[in-house]
Amino acid sequence: MQHKTETKTILQKENNFSEWYNEILKRAEILDIRYPVKGVYVWYPYGYKLRNLIYGILRSLLDKEHEEVLFPLLIPEKELMMEKEHVKGFEDEVFWVTRGGSTELDIPLALRPTSETAIYPVFKVWIRSHRDLPLRIYQIVNTFRYETKHTRPLIRLREITSFKEAHTAHASRADAEAQIKKAVALYKDFFDQLAIPYVITRRPDWDKFPGAEYSIAFDTLMPDGRTMQIATIHLLGESFARTFDIVYEDKDGAVKFVNQTCYGISERCVAAVISVHGDDHGLMLPPEVAPIQVVIVPIVFSSEGKSVEVEKACFVVYEELKKAGIRAFFDNSEERPGAKYYRWEMKGVPLRIEIGPRDLRNNRCEFVRRNDFKRMQVPLSDVVPEVERTLTGINDCIYERAKETFFANIYKNEGNNGAGKGKDKGEGAMEGLRRKGIVSLFLCESERCGKEIEERLGVNVLGEAVYEDGDEDEAEEREKSEGRCVICSKEGKRVYVARAY
Amino acid sequence: MQHKTETKTILQKENNFSEWYNEILKRAEILDIRYPVKGVYVWYPYGYKLRNLIYGILRSLLDKEHEEVLFPLLIPEKELMMEKEHVKGFEDEVFWVTRGGSTELDIPLALRPTSETAIYPVFKVWIRSHRDLPLRIYQIVNTFRYETKHTRPLIRLREITSFKEAHTAHASRADAEAQIKKAVALYKDFFDQLAIPYVITRRPDWDKFPGAEYSIAFDTLMPDGRTMQIATIHLLGESFARTFDIVYEDKDGAVKFVNQTCYGISERCVAAVISVHGDDHGLMLPPEVAPIQVVIVPIVFSSEGKSVEVEKACFVVYEELKKAGIRAFFDNSEERPGAKYYRWEMKGVPLRIEIGPRDLRNNRCEFVRRNDFKRMQVPLSDVVPEVERTLTGINDCIYERAKETFFANIYKNEGNNGAGKGKDKGEGAMEGLRRKGIVSLFLCESERCGKEIEERLGVNVLGEAVYEDGDEDEAEEREKSEGRCVICSKEGKRVYVARAY
Repeated sequence: MQHKTETKTILQKENNFSEWYNEILKRAEILDIRYPVKGVYVWYPYGYKLRNLIYGILRSLLDKEHEEVLFPLLIPEKELMMEKEHVKGFEDEVFWVTRGGSTELDIPLALRPTSETAIYPVFKVWIRSHRDLPLRIYQIVNTFRYETKHTRPLIRLREITSFKEAHTAHASRADAEAQIKKAVALYKDFFDQLAIPYVITRRPDWDKFPGAEYSIAFDTLMPDGRTMQIATIHLLGESFARTFDIVYEDKDGAVKFVNQTCYGISERCVAAVISVHGDDHGLMLPPEVAPIQVVIVPIVFSSEGKSVEVEKACFVVYEELKKAGIRAFFDNSEERPGAKYYRWEMKGVPLRIEIGPRDLRNNRCEFVRRNDFKRMQVPLSDVVPEVERTLTGINDCIYERAKETFFANIYKNEGNNGAGKGKDKGEGAMEGLRRKGIVSLFLCESERCGKEIEERLGVNVLGEAVYEDGDEDEAEEREKSEGRCVICSKEGKRVYVARAY
Repeated sequence: MQHKTETKTILQKENNFSEWYNEILKRAEILDIRYPVKGVYVWYPYGYKLRNLIYGILRSLLDKEHEEVLFPLLIPEKELMMEKEHVKGFEDEVFWVTRGGSTELDIPLALRPTSETAIYPVFKVWIRSHRDLPLRIYQIVNTFRYETKHTRPLIRLREITSFKEAHTAHASRADAEAQIKKAVALYKDFFDQLAIPYVITRRPDWDKFPGAEYSIAFDTLMPDGRTMQIATIHLLGESFARTFDIVYEDKDGAVKFVNQTCYGISERCVAAVISVHGDDHGLMLPPEVAPIQVVIVPIVFSSEGKSVEVEKACFVVYEELKKAGIRAFFDNSEERPGAKYYRWEMKGVPLRIEIGPRDLRNNRCEFVRRNDFKRMQVPLSDVVPEVERTLTGINDCIYERAKETFFANIYKNEGNNGAGKGKDKGEGAMEGLRRKGIVSLFLCESERCGKEIEERLGVNVLGEAVYEDGDEDEAEEREKSEGRCVICSKEGKRVYVARAY
């Protein structure tokens, strides 16, 4: 947007992630953080294009079995307060509208922190019969939290601009549980398409969604070794149905409560794409979500001036790529090639095509891959299929590298199975945590032991691993593995712990 | 969504538009009005699909020269209050957030009534040089007005869920004026695609956007004879630039204020599509924006039971249409054909295809057009091209009918040019107004005369017609036509007046 003077400072992702993150948001023009309200930010055009491409994938996955709707932002105090567990979880975080013009409102209106209490009174009138079930809807909306902690762009916000929340109602608990599995599969598909690795856990009971029976969460690993929750899925059971009186008549005329689930994803998915894949040169975007997939740069030396032939060749390539449905950009600005490289590397464009006079004489061009800067010469006649092949290859490399880093940073704490039984108290996990990562260890289900390990190690308990696939044998082994709680030595389960965002 | 018992009541659009409108929103499942906050409503899945298709057209028009962004909902009191004219126009209508959790906020935060004061402080930091201009952005967001008048779904809202606002900054007034012309052309294109007729006027000075130099508006005509403003375009000039100190350095190093425009469209465009085209059978959607363009209904009489052959033939047609990119739906539910006709006519599906056993024996199907219920027999082998041709034809008919109705309800008041000079005082316009429509008459530019005619006739002054095209001669004639203000007899211009929403 602005024509800035070029900045050549190399960023340092590994050494100072926090600074790297803020610099990237600015230099790649994702978010402008100079808005005069704490915890709310401005999406730049480039950032918003990235956001739209990512949410486009999410939408197309949801549209197969959900319908998009839109519910109001404002929730009356009474409705918000109806579900007791739920309100306890949110009451400290709610923004309240109390005035219209110069008039005090009779009833304060909450800005939705999430929409259960806006949607479920309407479910009550939408659902009559078993034929209305399952009901599966979603919306993508702004939601609000009065965060008192340190806010952070895309990650901890007062206005979450892009909260995708799905809400479903079913005839039975079995149907609702089946929906949980479908939601897990859908989110897996989504994050796989973003090349984001994750662990899936069942959150401890004392950390579940307020009002839920249980909560499933996806966490990824940030470059500073802290995990970030990127998706949650909740079995609500009948709790909200009983509060909001959502019933249906079954085939035999009996009136029953519906069984519900809800699941959400916020713009943290954008933060994950930026943080997991980026490097010291800037963003590194998976081709599927890159606003520009290929940038074409004419290579002309200042002594030669502009070359009409080179520009023409670039334009032909640009037109061919566009016709093939590839998001291409022809950078024929006045800047030096080096300045162009810097900008488009910063913006994470997966592939650069260079064409110079010598390339032209040989009817070829040069590909440069953003992920490893590898170069290859490609005949001009093969550009489209080669671009398609190369983009797929780049995506695979990005994903492989992300998974390698991720799984190399999961540490198993075994210290508690043998001699040190019950005495290790998790200190064996410290090595892993020192190296920044996720540690798996044994814990009983009590909140007391959970809180103690959190305090001792300065971590959060993510929960028991669930819905993992991959190697069957390994999964079976994990099933079998039993252990004793590192705190109280009672029977325990393997859980993940990590420092969490 | 709900399996309602079929209601056969014929709606009456002409006699009781207001009731018709509310019934349509419910029966066609556009909006659910049963939300417990005044002036805010719930978008049903079908309504939201219609909304998305309409906004898809708007987006694709804007994306040619604008970039989509997203600014925060919350505006600090200080920023909102900076532009004096602007705040005067909005202060009575602003919702205020004053509390977070149980904490009183230091600074009250406004829910944006429109985003000038959120965006322009950021323009100040985005714009440095003439190379940053023109800057053209838009966003589609929820905005809020504390309406004290009677609220009405899609038309007068406390939460406008789908406000498209564009904001541009230019190096000169000439550039800004050129942008106004482009915006007019863009909106013309948009409403033409929706088959919505309109008049374009320059609003009187005493009714322009607060803070603008002048405002251009599009108005359409509702079935009850009242006009509805469906788009506005404002030349802001330097007023906001001076308030928010938005300057740029020109080629010669001189620092100058930018020149601005802004223009907006809300979900009133959806209200217009519903109201202008619908009839006593329900919605009538232009094919371009119909969530379902073709519904396929198997015709089997109860004595015959289901026919596998007929179902198969329907499915083949469905698959062919889908492959051709047509939004088709195969209604193979258990209901009687009549119940299906009722539902899909209510939902405005432009074309119904019926296939029965006899059709099948003759390798044909039957088309039924929603707009005039005309039937035609079509060989099964020609379905795809015939559907495409027919949808285009339906669109043309819908548009023609809408334009006929619209222009038949614009009345010219000539009573003031001849003998009755200065004495008619607009009473000649009463005939037109009695027949529900728009009247064009002569007015001077004074607010006093404008207000007097408004009071006498119970109308609003829309303003002088501008940017009209069509018949060149007619336009010239209008140019030449001079007249004296129907109130004060001073020199006047032709303006439109009408009862307005």
